[in-house]
Order: sequence, then C-alpha cells, then structure tokens
Amino acid sequence: MRTKVGIVGAGPAGLLLSHLLHLRGIESVVLEKRSREYCERRVRAGVLEQGTVDVLNEAGVGERMRREGLPHHGIELRYGGAGHRIPFEKLIPGRSITVYGQQEVVKDLIAARLAAGGEIHFEVPDVALHDLTGSPYITFQGERLDCDVIAGCDGFHGVSRPAVPEGELTFFEREYPFAWLGILARVKPSAEELIYARTERGFALHSMRSPEVSRFYLQVPPDEQVENWPDDRIWAELKARLETVPGFTLETGEILEKGVTPMRSFVTEPMQYGRLYLAGDAAHIVPPTGAKGLNLAVADVRVLTQALDHWYRTGSTELLDAYSATCLKRVWRAQHFSWWMTTLLHTFDSDDAYGRRLQTSYLDYVTSSDAAATTLAENYVGLPW
Amino acid sequence: MRTKVGIVGAGPAGLLLSHLLHLRGIESVVLEKRSREYCERRVRAGVLEQGTVDVLNEAGVGERMRREGLPHHGIELRYGGAGHRIPFEKLIPGRSITVYGQQEVVKDLIAARLAAGGEIHFEVPDVALHDLTGSPYITFQGERLDCDVIAGCDGFHGVSRPAVPEGELTFFEREYPFAWLGILARVKPSAEELIYARTERGFALHSMRSPEVSRFYLQVPPDEQVENWPDDRIWAELKARLETVPGFTLETGEILEKGVTPMRSFVTEPMQYGRLYLAGDAAHIVPPTGAKGLNLAVADVRVLTQALDHWYRTGSTELLDAYSATCLKRVWRAQHFSWWMTTLLHTFDSDDAYGRRLQTSYLDYVTSSDAAATTLAENYVGLPW
Repeated sequence: MRTKVGIVGAGPAGLLLSHLLHLRGIESVVLEKRSREYCERRVRAGVLEQGTVDVLNEAGVGERMRREGLPHHGIELRYGGAGHRIPFEKLIPGRSITVYGQQEVVKDLIAARLAAGGEIHFEVPDVALHDLTGSPYITFQGERLDCDVIAGCDGFHGVSRPAVPEGELTFFEREYPFAWLGILARVKPSAEELIYARTERGFALHSMRSPEVSRFYLQVPPDEQVENWPDDRIWAELKARLETVPGFTLETGEILEKGVTPMRSFVTEPMQYGRLYLAGDAAHIVPPTGAKGLNLAVADVRVLTQALDHWYRTGSTELLDAYSATCLKRVWRAQHFSWWMTTLLHTFDSDDAYGRRLQTSYLDYVTSSDAAATTLAENYVGLPW
Repeated sequence: MRTKVGIVGAGPAGLLLSHLLHLRGIESVVLEKRSREYCERRVRAGVLEQGTVDVLNEAGVGERMRREGLPHHGIELRYGGAGHRIPFEKLIPGRSITVYGQQEVVKDLIAARLAAGGEIHFEVPDVALHDLTGSPYITFQGERLDCDVIAGCDGFHGVSRPAVPEGELTFFEREYPFAWLGILARVKPSAEELIYARTERGFALHSMRSPEVSRFYLQVPPDEQVENWPDDRIWAELKARLETVPGFTLETGEILEKGVTPMRSFVTEPMQYGRLYLAGDAAHIVPPTGAKGLNLAVADVRVLTQALDHWYRTGSTELLDAYSATCLKRVWRAQHFSWWMTTLLHTFDSDDAYGRRLQTSYLDYVTSSDAAATTLAENYVGLPW
C-alpha cells in the first residue's frame, strides 16, 4: 500500500488533517488503534475557540455544530462568595466560544471522511513507524503502508513520538499536585455559562454539553481513585464548591460517566523529525483549565495542511521545515495561559497563606481591570492565528 | 510632652504623614533613630507613581521634584536579543512616572517640616511604645511623649510592629532565591528610560537618578557579599546582561555606592492594633522590581491622614477602624504586581526548562498584546486610589 500522508490516530487532529488534505486533493490513510465506537464516545474537551469553529465551518463539517453547539459570550469566575462575569462581547467584540463536545467533532469528521471515500482503519493495535529520515513507512497487522510523510496524531501515549530516536527531541514538563474528577450528568445546566469556582475546598467547574447534559469537574488529589467518589459524594462536593453565591442552586441528575484526569503540562521540541510531523497531544499536553487541548490540535493541523499543500504544489520544503517553529509559538502561549488559569483557580499548598492572598488579589484584579479581564478573554477565545 | 500623633520614623512615610497632618492643623512629633544626614542620604527607591507625584504636589513639597525629577512615559523590557518598549502614553494616556530619588523626597519633606516649625527628633535610639490599647505614649531618652494615636512608620526592622503583643497580628511572607546588588554611579544614563533586562545570566536593571547619575541592579545569589563585587566585575556583568541588543553601549563611570538588597515579600494583617497604626515598610515589604515600596507608603499615609482628620473633625472612628482594610486592598495589589514583575524577569532554578519557556512566552505576550502590556503599565504607573 502507498499513500501520500500516513496519519496515525483518528482523534480530532488526525481526522481533521485527513479531511483538510482531501479538500486540497492530497490523499491520506488514517490508522487508529481503537474502535470507531470508542473514538466517537470518548468524552474530552468541549470548548471550541472562534478559530476552531471557523476552520470546521470552512472545511464543510460545521453543519451540526452550528445547529447543536452552544455559543457562549462570557464565563464566570466565582470566588469569595460572589460571581464575576468576564464579558467577551464587551472586551473582545465579535469573538466567542462554542460549547460542542470533542466526540461530536470526531463523529462529524468520521462521517465526512467516510462519505468522501476516505480510508480509516480502526482497531489496528500494532502500528509501527519506520525509516523516518529516509522513505518512511508504517507497518500494521502484517501490512506495509509507504508514505511521503507521516503525521503523528496519536496522542500523548501514542507510538509516534517514541518512534523518534532518543536524544533527538527535548521534552518540557510540569506536573500539578492535583487531578480533575470529571463527570457527565443527565441534567440541564444550572447556569447558562461556564462557572470556574475557586474555593477553600478546591476548584470546581460547571460546564455543559447540551441543554440536557451537564459536565462538572472537581479538583481532587493527584492519585485519586474514582471508586472513592460515589454519586452522593460528588453532588455534595459540587454543591459545597458551587453553591457559594446567593440564589444559585445546583441541579442534580443521573451521572452518566466519571473519570479522573491528571493535570500535566508537556511540550516536545521540535515537533518534527525527518518526515514525521507530530500534532496535537502527541506533541504537547495542557491541563484542561484553559480548554486549549483540542484547539491547539486544530491549530497544528491547520499549519501542517498549509505546509504539505505548499510542498506538493511547489516542491519547496520551506513551510514544512518551519512547521515546528510555527506551531510552537502558539503552543507556548497556550501552555502559559493554561498554567495561568490553573494557578489562578486551584488550591495549592494550603500552608502557603501568602500564595492564597496573592491568588485572591489576582482574581480581584482580573475581575475589576478591563485590561486584565481582556487578557483572559482574548486567550480563552483564542488569539488570532 | 504631649502631641496628637506620635510618629515613629523619619522616612518618607513618617515625614509625609507629619506634613499632611500639619496642613490639616493636626500636630505631631516625629522620632527617628538615625541622624538627619543618614536619612537624607539613604539611597532607596526612585520611581514615583502618578498618584505619589500628585500627593507631593498638592502638599506643596513638589517644587524641586518638578524641576529635577525625570518624567518617564515608558519602560523597556529587554530579552532574547531585543528591546520591547511598554509605551505608557499609548496604553494609559495622561499617566506617567517620575524618576526622583527617595532621599530627595526625604530632603524636601524634612526641609518643609522644619520650615513650618515641625518637631523632628533625630538620633533617638531607644524609642519604646506603651499602652497601645489605652492611653498610648512613647518613651525615648528618659522622655515621655503622650499621644492620641501612634503611627508606626519605622520600617521593616523598626520597633513599632514588634510592640504589638504576639498573636494579634498575622504575617504573610515569601522569600526569593536571589538578591539585588545595587550601585549608584557617576555616569550619564545609557538610555533615556528604565531597562528591565532578563538574561540567562540573571536579571539586570538600568535606571537613573539624574542626567549625571545612573542606578543599576544585578540579580545575585541571596547571600551575596558586596566584597565579591569589585568595580570591574560589576561593569563586566552589567555589560554582559545589558549589551544584548545591537547598538546599545553601556556607559561606565565612578561607582559611588554599592549594596545588596534582599528580595522579600511581607504583609502584616491587620495594619493596626489599638491606637497604633502601621504604615509603609513597617507593615509590608515588596521586592523592588515593581518600584512599589515608597508609593505604597505614600498611599498608606494618605489613607491615615484622611482617617485621622475625619476623627478629629467628627469624633467618628469609622475611617480609622477601616484603615487596615482600606490599605490592604492596594497593598495586596502591589504585592501581586511586585511578585509578577519579579517572576517575569528573574532567573529561577535553571534546571526548570519548562519554567524558562513559560517565562519567555509570557514576555512575548506582554510585549505583543495591548491588553497584557496595559496590565503592566497601569500597575507600574499606579492604579487609581
């Protein structure tokens, strides 16, 4: 078998890349370890930047997103017994976010790829990458797929990044002393917008997936086991952290899913090696606080598409050579923003009374200075490409 | 002896308080451990916020400051081989800073107090505070000064704060893993504005006191001895950290003074106990990076003057009771800003490669986003009272 671009991973990065390449007449093959069902059900991010929405619309896969996605024009920061709205429409007119689950994006992309005759191989567990600096090829289930280039879109735990010889990549990493317990519940959202709550008990996030399904997160210890959190305890803790302003009542309902997400920052430099290009979580991880993971993957893929298109049309590797450097500027901005949101809102060492006061002062500033609120808003909605 | 307000310390806080009270017809006595010469020569801060300049002008002690002070409309952040100006005139029109040494403010205030018949006792080393919750009085050199209230303006190492019984005050503290080596040199400034330089070798600051005198700072280890820094080494290190952009040459000259300043953050809560009110460094310390120490002292004294005036005129203790809470909002804003500027520009653990990248990304953001640059500018120039 032979294709132009071998894509490892059928998450949003791999699927969108395959679709964008197809629109430019560049053929690709997607290889995915898991089943289609698994990919379409995996609950992940749910906040799309303005630019991500634009890319999906321009690529013709935005129809259901426009219909079912929830446009939001602000978020609430809740602390010290009061809620403070960050009004995007006032601070960055004309730009907003769209709440639409990552698994919905995946469903739309798989449907679009298959409708266009795209080739996606699900449930191929033994993918291996070869000859990355020569004539690259991928092996899986006794098959060999020769490619011009390989796109490693297989996430943090995928095989693409480890296929690069030791010493060729530098890793930058930070771990946080907590994790997120996330739940999906069949209950209408208790507020129209996202609520980021900082309390003495830890951080909590009120979010949603649809008018009938809510998404919540609780800061928990880094090694927390989901078994320690029966439904009653989850609702009690969410109430304790979110029902902190007069008149707010948390609606409860059936919990559909529970999971613990570690909080980690990670960057690979460069994001390319020979003819392998890493995109999305394969190259970088952010804590979910800033809602940047999926959006960064889309940004990477956008850059990679343009670079491959330029190469196939002109023969010049200029944009491909610059792929990593181009992406990393945005990656590091998002790394910083995610770290910033995380440190602004979580409870760290409770013995550090000075740090707590500093955090409160920063929150007071962000919610009272237009300039400071704009730094949050413009990063959250996504800086221009 | 008896006075209305007994003021401990003849630094900018104590002297300005005495002068502002005098303008409202409220008598005070200032007690200072050191000599007049020492106070007038002690080199400290040199950047006055817009509001500080306004207070000094309104109090009639701004004549020489207007003549000799240097108004600045921006600062430069220098890193990665380039300089980036933060243009105050564009970001916060109509507001600027004035470069004028703290010791010059002290000279002007001492002159104004003495000209108005104000009472300042210099070189009284044995000041002690008594009966703070009853009828307060101060003893020194066998004398007793009875007062309505006492203002503790005697700095971080003064006697006022320790006069409060243990357990009545809460201290919030942070130490930084470095200090500043500061020098004063007889040489014209090498640039018109302040340059905050972040390098792999550590932070450096180019500042000035007059068209003939420059002030420089170097980040050094926290326990550094000034003896380790002969003049040659200082100039070589300043050149290495500041001559990092094309066309910039550091002018050198005679070094007039050298000193090592520890970097510490400290806040006392509350800033009052009984009839004792703490102001300036006696209540809080910031690292000098944000140039906030002197300006915070002026802000405290302004609040205390209004509160005392209100009490003497109406008999109501309302503003006096609120003194600490009123001041602490601004204090914590300045604490945060000073911490922010410090962490943005200094070299921390060089093993933390992730942290270094984060710092670069933040600097890139501050120097490219108007919103982010405005957060620096509005804090640096001083938020409204």
